[in-house]
Amino acid sequence: MDIYIDRDELSRGLARVQGVIERRSTHPLLSHVLLHAREGGLRLTATDTEVAFIGDLAANVSQTGQLTVEASNLFQIVRAMPEATVQLSRTANHRLQIQSGRTSFELPGFPAEEFPALPAFDQRGSVKVAERELLRLIEQTHFAVAADDIRYGLNGVHMEERVVDGEQRLRFVATDGHRLSSAETAAEGALHLTPRMLVPKKALAVMKKLLGRSDEKVELAFGEGAVRLSMPGQTFWFRLLDGEFPDYEAVVPSDNKVFALLDRNALLAALRRVSIVVSERSKAVRFAFGEDAVQIQVQQVDRADMKEDVPLELQGAPITVGFNARYLQDILTVLEGDRVRLSLAHPLAPCLVEDPDASGAFFVVMPMRLD
Amino acid sequence: MDIYIDRDELSRGLARVQGVIERRSTHPLLSHVLLHAREGGLRLTATDTEVAFIGDLAANVSQTGQLTVEASNLFQIVRAMPEATVQLSRTANHRLQIQSGRTSFELPGFPAEEFPALPAFDQRGSVKVAERELLRLIEQTHFAVAADDIRYGLNGVHMEERVVDGEQRLRFVATDGHRLSSAETAAEGALHLTPRMLVPKKALAVMKKLLGRSDEKVELAFGEGAVRLSMPGQTFWFRLLDGEFPDYEAVVPSDNKVFALLDRNALLAALRRVSIVVSERSKAVRFAFGEDAVQIQVQQVDRADMKEDVPLELQGAPITVGFNARYLQDILTVLEGDRVRLSLAHPLAPCLVEDPDASGAFFVVMPMRLD
Repeated sequence: MDIYIDRDELSRGLARVQGVIERRSTHPLLSHVLLHAREGGLRLTATDTEVAFIGDLAANVSQTGQLTVEASNLFQIVRAMPEATVQLSRTANHRLQIQSGRTSFELPGFPAEEFPALPAFDQRGSVKVAERELLRLIEQTHFAVAADDIRYGLNGVHMEERVVDGEQRLRFVATDGHRLSSAETAAEGALHLTPRMLVPKKALAVMKKLLGRSDEKVELAFGEGAVRLSMPGQTFWFRLLDGEFPDYEAVVPSDNKVFALLDRNALLAALRRVSIVVSERSKAVRFAFGEDAVQIQVQQVDRADMKEDVPLELQGAPITVGFNARYLQDILTVLEGDRVRLSLAHPLAPCLVEDPDASGAFFVVMPMRLD
Repeated sequence: MDIYIDRDELSRGLARVQGVIERRSTHPLLSHVLLHAREGGLRLTATDTEVAFIGDLAANVSQTGQLTVEASNLFQIVRAMPEATVQLSRTANHRLQIQSGRTSFELPGFPAEEFPALPAFDQRGSVKVAERELLRLIEQTHFAVAADDIRYGLNGVHMEERVVDGEQRLRFVATDGHRLSSAETAAEGALHLTPRMLVPKKALAVMKKLLGRSDEKVELAFGEGAVRLSMPGQTFWFRLLDGEFPDYEAVVPSDNKVFALLDRNALLAALRRVSIVVSERSKAVRFAFGEDAVQIQVQQVDRADMKEDVPLELQGAPITVGFNARYLQDILTVLEGDRVRLSLAHPLAPCLVEDPDASGAFFVVMPMRLD
């Protein structure tokens, strides 16, 4: 193996690999990246046996060959190289030499045969989705996934097919029992979804890093308990969690009587100020929705108090509700429009949060009892 | 107490206080700042009883008064305020109300009488030093102070008076036994230095934040076991450590025979690359000074190797020496010129590091035995 490659191209490729590798595994090769110099370029492969990534980079290959080395070490070294071109070559004892200008590193490696097997994937169907839309689906749902919940079905994002006005749509839904996120977008092709297909947190985190905000289409393919994302030069696939997602439609309120329309950024700024004084997640913050403003209020014995009025347009009668302010903050952060609408029925009913100017997502927050 | 004050002015004032307060103390008021609204402005006072800070800020005072509140809480709140002006007023039960636009916070406080006593200071003499020069003295020495060494005399920066060509100079010296830093500058006035006056790490850290890079003069005053720094609107004073600094002049080499002149940034970049593969502080890195270049080399069994040539101009015979590369990196980071000179006698003799174009500082690094 002997190649010349652009330092920044290699650095970007290795950055994508960092989320895939498993640093704290008993199997040392799960923290490695497999380098494969082939006709036409360098292929990077990484896996933790649950998820796998293949990235193809342009490179000037004088001699083909394969080798694995520790991925985070290689990434740090490549980034720090003095010149724009880096030479990678294999030396004795499966060592990788990395050269640039008058600098030379050598990393211990393993032969490619010892690299762990990649998870299998047998395609049943696939759809095309706009790259920026798939990123939005992930950003708008991932934070509501439960953190290691004993209810196994809450530990990933549930995927389902919807048909709206004859258009096929892919919906992502997540909930931890306290709040729920749902986001959907148009998907062209054969969606092959069955129940009990949950996208795990790690796969969501990797895809969040891989995806950009272009309007280009990417391919999502569905297999037996697995999903594969394909983009030019990059393929990422992962095993799904086999858990039963709850019947979430029951908690989405449909009989709301009070509708509050607010400036999203003004409300978000107020919620960030709330978070300065509210440290515990379980603290109910008082939201008094009035004719012209919502008064947000935190009162704490022997600790900091806080009060802020955020202007609103109200439809329906004034109402006072307790919320975990952090849950509202999470939602407002991933909405994209200038305005936000909160729809309420009574102080202990779930609250629906939406962008009144976009129909691709909705959120539900359970209220909290005020003392 | 009732005042209006510019949010950013108050925020900057509170930022200065953050390094002074003691967050993890059993005495709750050591994490507080004393706010004193007086004719003409707001005075901030903070102390951990070893160091103390007073800062005066411009403010529109409608009602004078005093109060203490938790300093880091207040800082976070003020920074997040929505409008450019903030109103501070005292409410019932020694609470402080902070208002801006439609936002209002209240923090629990204590009456000023409960604020801890400030360390005493009786001035014996004082000098004027350029602000940027005092900052340089601190930056070029603080990192060589020992970290909680059992040799008490190494736990701070030693100060001494020097006279060079009839000019009075203030010198700072620090060592941890492995490397030594010395930096000095012109000081006008009455230096009142006695032995056993060591500036502790915390005072160095606070001054590093308070001082800027202006050419204006600041005042350093010397008292019995204490030093006070005065700048317009700010006073900071601290107790000195009463420890015996070693006779350091003995380790400064004067019989060097080999002189290597290098580009500071090129050597620094190489040392940063060395640090990627050398994790242990105790690892000796091989520096082979040759006719045209120093070859820096790290060899490690079953781990990463590294080799880099950095061009130099050599006077004297080639020589190979082992160094803790991190120590050289620390020094090059705080030098200001384009070039650096390393002066050596033999492989186990201390190495002198200097800027060949500036005489205000020198550094000594002890070599390490190569395997």
